[in-house]
Amino acid sequence: MKLTKDMNILIVGLGLLGGSYAKALTKKGYRVTAITRSQSSIDFAMEDGMITAGAASVDPALVGEADLIVFALYPHIFLDWVKEHQDLFKPGAVITDVTGVKGCIVSEIQSILRPDVEFIAAHPMAGREVSGVKNSDDSIFRGANYVVTPSERNTPDAIELCEDLGNVLGFARVSRLSPDDHDEIIAFVSQLTHCIAVSLMTCQQTEHLEDYTGDSFRDLTRIARLNDEMWSELFLLNKEALLKQMNLFQRELDRLKIMIEDDDAEGMREMMRYSTARRALFDKKPN
Amino acid sequence: MKLTKDMNILIVGLGLLGGSYAKALTKKGYRVTAITRSQSSIDFAMEDGMITAGAASVDPALVGEADLIVFALYPHIFLDWVKEHQDLFKPGAVITDVTGVKGCIVSEIQSILRPDVEFIAAHPMAGREVSGVKNSDDSIFRGANYVVTPSERNTPDAIELCEDLGNVLGFARVSRLSPDDHDEIIAFVSQLTHCIAVSLMTCQQTEHLEDYTGDSFRDLTRIARLNDEMWSELFLLNKEALLKQMNLFQRELDRLKIMIEDDDAEGMREMMRYSTARRALFDKKPN
Repeated sequence: MKLTKDMNILIVGLGLLGGSYAKALTKKGYRVTAITRSQSSIDFAMEDGMITAGAASVDPALVGEADLIVFALYPHIFLDWVKEHQDLFKPGAVITDVTGVKGCIVSEIQSILRPDVEFIAAHPMAGREVSGVKNSDDSIFRGANYVVTPSERNTPDAIELCEDLGNVLGFARVSRLSPDDHDEIIAFVSQLTHCIAVSLMTCQQTEHLEDYTGDSFRDLTRIARLNDEMWSELFLLNKEALLKQMNLFQRELDRLKIMIEDDDAEGMREMMRYSTARRALFDKKPN
Repeated sequence: MKLTKDMNILIVGLGLLGGSYAKALTKKGYRVTAITRSQSSIDFAMEDGMITAGAASVDPALVGEADLIVFALYPHIFLDWVKEHQDLFKPGAVITDVTGVKGCIVSEIQSILRPDVEFIAAHPMAGREVSGVKNSDDSIFRGANYVVTPSERNTPDAIELCEDLGNVLGFARVSRLSPDDHDEIIAFVSQLTHCIAVSLMTCQQTEHLEDYTGDSFRDLTRIARLNDEMWSELFLLNKEALLKQMNLFQRELDRLKIMIEDDDAEGMREMMRYSTARRALFDKKPN
């Protein structure tokens, strides 16, 4: 099943990511509406032309006519929302999300969801260090990865629809992982990196360090500016996988520390050559 | 003493940084020559117009007429060069460098140097993850920091000249630190970050991770592509300070790990809020 222009697409949660979805979809001619808590966000989105209608409360008409609903909410709010309002969903509707952790969300939502509505989870790996619909920007999807995480409960139709959404949004690569594999990888490439950035930012209180800082420190701490409510929730939802990756990283840093202690220049150089070669794989791919 | 246009400036070592110095100085109307090992680098620099003369060997005329010499070499090569060729220096010449570690270099060079020549050390905190004169680019200095590290042997004239060089090159901020303070700070903002990036890049051999990677992982590992010869040397030259900073960082990461283990959401949120506020200080300043 492909995304088509006669479908009604509803975004629930119009922040940076929800707004960027709305922008990208509207630009391509899709019909997009939104529900979010703040009336000023709806007003902004209407004036900007990124949605055709919106409400600052759970509007039964908007929910009931939506063929595809994208939930761009904190994980626990998403879960509560579905519990409370799922009777409003249109029969046959497909719902998806943007949550950064999948294992628990996919099974929890799928186990409580009405049988005539399907939840297919996705993780758009794009963001900015600012938030809010006013900062939304559909160019963040360019060159980025979009991962769909189906479970055995999902149908080929919904999986295809969700993958098509990723393509329409403009992601460079759309791929598929099981929810558990996703969480293991995300613990490494996203959560561990945020743990490192935060720890680097808070381990030293020396004043005026910024006068002696180069790009390397700025790069490693860009993501140390983060939404504490969301990230603390994501860390705890993926606790086991994250702790495993933190331990793996700490062992490797210990290995390097021992080389430095032992004046093992050749060992360090070998590690650096491997690091240099492996890093080349990770450059952003052109769309 | 200010940098003036009748001075002869010689760059020894025409790589990315030496080439970027040459470009910036020539653009502003200064007279720049170069000595470097590779004839093709000299040829490139001559064709590009970034130097007025150059040699692929230690040319006594070029060295002997230079009022200011910038050494853009690996630390041990810089030391050997001065030992071997310092008889060629013009009396009254000032020499400076770009080395990323200062404590040992400043005292070693100053202790062997002819009394009629002065070494004033500087650390231009700019670079790229590529190397070679062909990649040189004077825009890397914009918004960046330049640190002069005088010792008690330096004269106010030479310190002022070196600071003026930083300003002429186009750095956003020129500051002054003792060699030891510099090394302590650099261990944190530059060397520790490189250790982290390398360890992050090498602690996992999982294949196809790049298909599921977001910007955070790319940012934290940009500097994992590095010159193994130079960085292993810099790490060992600043071993004690670096190990201290590695331990500091590891303790902080452990603290976060314990919060995650203990489901201490409030503790994490407090740490993240501090990190977010502190990170704001480190944005690049406009020139």
